[in-house]
Amino acid sequence: MQRTAERSSAPDERWRIRRTHDDLDRLGETESVFALSNGWLGWRGTLDEGRPCDMPGSYLNGLHERRKLNYPEDGHGFPQLSDTVISAPNATLVRLWVDGEPLDVRTGTLHHHEQVLDLRAGALERLTEWTSPGGHTVRIRSTRLVSLPRRRVGAVEWTVEALHGPVELRICADLLANERVEDRADDPRAAAVIDDPLVGEVQQLDGSAGALVHRTGHSDQRVAAAVAHHPTAPDHVTSSADATEDRIRFSLAGVLQPGERVTLAKFAAYEWQPVDGASPDDLADQVMTDALAARADGFAALRAEQRAALDAAWRTADVLLDGDDKLQLAIRFAMFHLIQAGRPDGDRTIPAKGLTGNGYDGHVLWDTEGYVLPVLTYVAPEVARSALRWRHAHLPQALERAAELRLTGATFPWRTIGGQECSGYWPAGTAGLHVNADIADAVLRYVAATGDDDFLAGPGLELLVATARLWAGFGHYTDDGRCHIVGVTGPDEYSALVDDNLFTNLMARRNLRGAADAVQRHPEAATRLGVDPAEVTAWRAAADAMTVPYDAKRGVHQQSAGFTEQPEWDFAGTSEDDYPLLLHFPYLELYRHQVVKQADLVLAMQRFPGEFSAEEKAANFAYYQARTVRDSSLSASPQGVLAAELGHLDLAYDLFTESVLQDLEDLGDKTGDGLHLASLGGAWLALVQGFGGMRDDRELLTFDPRLPDRIERLAFSLCWHGQRLLVTLTADQARYELPDAPTGTTVELWHHGERLRVSAGEPVTRPMPPVPDFGPEPPSPDGRRPKGR
Amino acid sequence: MQRTAERSSAPDERWRIRRTHDDLDRLGETESVFALSNGWLGWRGTLDEGRPCDMPGSYLNGLHERRKLNYPEDGHGFPQLSDTVISAPNATLVRLWVDGEPLDVRTGTLHHHEQVLDLRAGALERLTEWTSPGGHTVRIRSTRLVSLPRRRVGAVEWTVEALHGPVELRICADLLANERVEDRADDPRAAAVIDDPLVGEVQQLDGSAGALVHRTGHSDQRVAAAVAHHPTAPDHVTSSADATEDRIRFSLAGVLQPGERVTLAKFAAYEWQPVDGASPDDLADQVMTDALAARADGFAALRAEQRAALDAAWRTADVLLDGDDKLQLAIRFAMFHLIQAGRPDGDRTIPAKGLTGNGYDGHVLWDTEGYVLPVLTYVAPEVARSALRWRHAHLPQALERAAELRLTGATFPWRTIGGQECSGYWPAGTAGLHVNADIADAVLRYVAATGDDDFLAGPGLELLVATARLWAGFGHYTDDGRCHIVGVTGPDEYSALVDDNLFTNLMARRNLRGAADAVQRHPEAATRLGVDPAEVTAWRAAADAMTVPYDAKRGVHQQSAGFTEQPEWDFAGTSEDDYPLLLHFPYLELYRHQVVKQADLVLAMQRFPGEFSAEEKAANFAYYQARTVRDSSLSASPQGVLAAELGHLDLAYDLFTESVLQDLEDLGDKTGDGLHLASLGGAWLALVQGFGGMRDDRELLTFDPRLPDRIERLAFSLCWHGQRLLVTLTADQARYELPDAPTGTTVELWHHGERLRVSAGEPVTRPMPPVPDFGPEPPSPDGRRPKGR
Repeated sequence: MQRTAERSSAPDERWRIRRTHDDLDRLGETESVFALSNGWLGWRGTLDEGRPCDMPGSYLNGLHERRKLNYPEDGHGFPQLSDTVISAPNATLVRLWVDGEPLDVRTGTLHHHEQVLDLRAGALERLTEWTSPGGHTVRIRSTRLVSLPRRRVGAVEWTVEALHGPVELRICADLLANERVEDRADDPRAAAVIDDPLVGEVQQLDGSAGALVHRTGHSDQRVAAAVAHHPTAPDHVTSSADATEDRIRFSLAGVLQPGERVTLAKFAAYEWQPVDGASPDDLADQVMTDALAARADGFAALRAEQRAALDAAWRTADVLLDGDDKLQLAIRFAMFHLIQAGRPDGDRTIPAKGLTGNGYDGHVLWDTEGYVLPVLTYVAPEVARSALRWRHAHLPQALERAAELRLTGATFPWRTIGGQECSGYWPAGTAGLHVNADIADAVLRYVAATGDDDFLAGPGLELLVATARLWAGFGHYTDDGRCHIVGVTGPDEYSALVDDNLFTNLMARRNLRGAADAVQRHPEAATRLGVDPAEVTAWRAAADAMTVPYDAKRGVHQQSAGFTEQPEWDFAGTSEDDYPLLLHFPYLELYRHQVVKQADLVLAMQRFPGEFSAEEKAANFAYYQARTVRDSSLSASPQGVLAAELGHLDLAYDLFTESVLQDLEDLGDKTGDGLHLASLGGAWLALVQGFGGMRDDRELLTFDPRLPDRIERLAFSLCWHGQRLLVTLTADQARYELPDAPTGTTVELWHHGERLRVSAGEPVTRPMPPVPDFGPEPPSPDGRRPKGR
Repeated sequence: MQRTAERSSAPDERWRIRRTHDDLDRLGETESVFALSNGWLGWRGTLDEGRPCDMPGSYLNGLHERRKLNYPEDGHGFPQLSDTVISAPNATLVRLWVDGEPLDVRTGTLHHHEQVLDLRAGALERLTEWTSPGGHTVRIRSTRLVSLPRRRVGAVEWTVEALHGPVELRICADLLANERVEDRADDPRAAAVIDDPLVGEVQQLDGSAGALVHRTGHSDQRVAAAVAHHPTAPDHVTSSADATEDRIRFSLAGVLQPGERVTLAKFAAYEWQPVDGASPDDLADQVMTDALAARADGFAALRAEQRAALDAAWRTADVLLDGDDKLQLAIRFAMFHLIQAGRPDGDRTIPAKGLTGNGYDGHVLWDTEGYVLPVLTYVAPEVARSALRWRHAHLPQALERAAELRLTGATFPWRTIGGQECSGYWPAGTAGLHVNADIADAVLRYVAATGDDDFLAGPGLELLVATARLWAGFGHYTDDGRCHIVGVTGPDEYSALVDDNLFTNLMARRNLRGAADAVQRHPEAATRLGVDPAEVTAWRAAADAMTVPYDAKRGVHQQSAGFTEQPEWDFAGTSEDDYPLLLHFPYLELYRHQVVKQADLVLAMQRFPGEFSAEEKAANFAYYQARTVRDSSLSASPQGVLAAELGHLDLAYDLFTESVLQDLEDLGDKTGDGLHLASLGGAWLALVQGFGGMRDDRELLTFDPRLPDRIERLAFSLCWHGQRLLVTLTADQARYELPDAPTGTTVELWHHGERLRVSAGEPVTRPMPPVPDFGPEPPSPDGRRPKGR
């Protein structure tokens, strides 16, 4: 994208998220919004001094503790152990005492305070001017980053300046394990907090650097963290260091004259391994080496590397949204967090909250394959591959789980960190078998978008075959020759244990056919998996016979069999305070009524546009729009995509707005537990699939763009078989180009029913298609239309 | 019944359950089988010396502790607290040391050991001859009873005799609180054990009598227990008594010569109250007074009272079953436990395990209204009334619970002791709304059988109206004018959250119509409850429109909508070790298949014989028999009743056998946790409704008797509007008579379609109808046919 090349000395506010002293009452939310991550290490955006603090968090992807789940009434296959994310030692802390009084923005006088997340620099900046209760004024600046190129490394450069003086300062830079976290388990979506999860094994001190190694009590993991310090201070400032089981502390002390400064650069490195991996001492050496190397290179070098990595990422990930500066910034915020949530190297996935908080216990859910990988496949395909390789690495556990449940094939967990099922409420967990088809769908999308046949022949095929085998065993035929999938839960969590959930059935069909196609493409690999022709024939037969429930009387598809015959919800009798409904009504009432938490049939229409006529889509959308309350952040995006497709562009824009502001404005009051990565991914989908009209259910990408008045220009990029396709939409025209491709490269695509060939150096423009007209905007439930801005 | 008048000096083994040293490996089962109760106080049949012991238990109806329920994922309306039965102080203990060695049948040499439950005496007798490891031989005899006429009182008469000597004996008679109980929570049906639930408040000692008062930690209850001792011993035997917070101990010590004996009569009394009831000292006085009064009257007087009370009870409760001595004894065993489980006075109900163990946490379930009251209504109607008054006393909580669940009317708990919902798995608990109709059904049955119009006008009407209001709000109409009840769970716990469960729908219809009839009978009382004519009209309309799901293609009714279209269970692939299925398959698999844990549609056919033609019954029975695995002890009885009705008398007999031997032979391996009172009640129903062909869905009792070859004579009594109707069936004829009624009394009934009038002193006999012939016995699932004997 052109603008990413711009550089100027004044910071570009179109790339900066700012919070000031006015925002100190929304600390938890701010900590999540300002979380930094590289997909492997995540630091919440807590203040350097560590207080006030809503929830500290230094997360390593995969590091967790294990806890016993207790059920008032147990059942076969109920998971007995659950993984819970825990914090690695916190290396962000730099505490300051001013004449014996601790820096705390709640005390004394705060003249200026701001934190700024620079989305291009990949750094969190902080500036505070504060007068202590004793009357001494200091200025604090800091810059914090989690290095994208160095997966183990994070760093802080922190400066204090005495504005009046002389003043006696004491600075303690801590690496702190087993920090206390408050339990907020009054909400089922909050995390279980485990106190003091880490047991010390090694404490190492080497001058101003040191390392701690701990192990977990139950999950058999070992975690190491090191810090190396580089102070810059007047000569009379003294330093010291010490280590205890849970803390490495590097201290500076002295008296500063007005204008004098102390700068401390702090370089941290982390690693974790299973306890049967590296020894504690080897791990300590590893992180110490990384921290010392970072210190040797210096903070400026880390910043430069970071900027370069982000420049590269933004080339594909940036979205231009002219006409609404706030949402322009918001979509960049969303893409920033998607970029930093994953890694191209290794086999790591992206939890529902990324590494930004401990919500959902830090679990991975179907959010990843359902909402995040559909974005990353096109803006960072190697990260999507890494996440799918993580699923493949846990295939053995999924096969075991299927056997425990007496099912065929593989059953991937609804919630997990370590690969085991951790869902403690099976009707909305284990019964959500569609997660298996979501994984298969993500494999098929990744392969289609990249042409990565090696992946398909290897992990891809294994994933496709194991999941297809689940459906082949689970589906059953009725006398009329139809295949049914009964007793499962679809995406909508206000229904459970339903028959023939339309989304699940179509996803299972895609899974079965995709596996069959892959087997035919790689017959030898398939034979090694024991696939024989009869099995493939059975898959195709089940796919062909799959039931798609339709209510002929009402002229709409059914979310699941019989859904449209269920009692209607009394929306008129439901007050604003009754939302989210799950906190005020029992599942008994929610499940049996026609009330929809989140897009389900509408999501199916987004994923399978060819399965529905335009008239069916319009009728279905209107029917379900009137019954969908969006108590889940997964809902606005698919609803927005379909609203756009049906020409309800105001509604689509408002739904996009809800999705992209979910965390920046904490619309669900849950951002403090971590960001909703699915909602951030959904924001991109709402733009690209909604206004861009992009669909990927055919061999080539398809575009049916339509822009709401409020957007003057929308530009986004998609990686397609290694090429960056740049799409630029204005009121008049759609432009397709390959800005980076060597001469001779071409990409084919569909634009509004016309097959186009785009060649390097030869952008293709076409007039914008007319906006579809399916009449006025269908009503939403009372008070539940997205508010817009 | 004639034989109840028999008396002879030799014990009548047709009334005695015996266990010997051969049974010491089934201790828990024996403790349950030999439990004594009067519906208010229950003592498990533990050995006097308290060891070996599987689980001690001294239960007071309603005494419980409260504990927090924890859910891995909580939900609105999930109960947060649960009641758990706890043991009151144990007053049965009489410990013996022989030359310093404790009496323990596992040590030394056991020459003779037996416990005998005398069903007419209402007493547990024990005889043991034992040589201690040190070579001293003693004979122990004891008799234990829980007094039926004196609700607070239990007593033990215990004797030791030195067979060789001289031997030094020490005897400790304990009243012991907070006895340790082992936790066996590996099975969802076991109880949660709370250690040391009682906190001491009062210890009182008065010579050889003493009392303890404790309170519970969380349930705000107070419990008092007293013991008064009466020793008979040679002069040189000394005695002493002491009291600690958890123990009153009365000790005897001395040296016995051969042939010398010590006899100790121990009289106990118990009371509990809410802590805001009587003061601790008043409670101590109460139980002390009762214990001293019992001692003053003496053990022989208690025995005589007990015998008289049982003679009266057996008059109606006894069942003669000639032709099978084992099952004759077994049905008496069943009736004995039903007699002693309830009380006519006060507002007490009967938990699922009575007062015989802590299984199901001591909870009351629908077993009571569904399986126990249908018996007691006819053999002890005043006990049925008492249980229904208990439900009425907890109506306020049921109204509150409905409001919490956002439902109309009342929602009675699926599991409870104190009246609050305690079910920790809502799909098989809260969703089992039929419990409300079961209560209404029990009210209607009680009123029909007794003509107790006062009860109907008072508590009965309130129960009927509150439950009818639940259904009126819960049911909904579809466009075709049918009324549906969706998203609930019927009796079969291998299905959940189904639509139009046939049993539930018919029970709701009965509830609605019964409430409407009661309102019309007592209009003023109804007006005070706010019932207006429009409401009653709506009830009748909903009842008339209620859906009864039927599969025309297969020609069978559906247990719930769509049931017969679900996948079939793979019985051929299910091994014997896979049963009970709930311990080996997830609900995910059970719920979606056509596999039935327990009679559901078949129970509906038992309850609503007029709703089905004979051909429909035959087709339905065959269909569901092939799919019902009887993993619940609630199943054999209804299946037996329908098998008999359809002429499958061998199958019916085997099902009756399974029901009546459930606990005596521990068929489900759960008897150690307490007896299955529903199965014991079910045994009577299998005889009376199965072979007697009794039905009570019409204004008069109906009989369509048919006897299997294995029964030569079957005789049973039913209370009908205050009269005892004696029915005697043989191969040739059915005889109906009113043996106790004053001249001029008549009872009308139906015999095989003929309306009969039976007058006092004028027995009516009729030939036995022909056995219906619906072809050969329908097959059961592989290996799941009841084994018979």
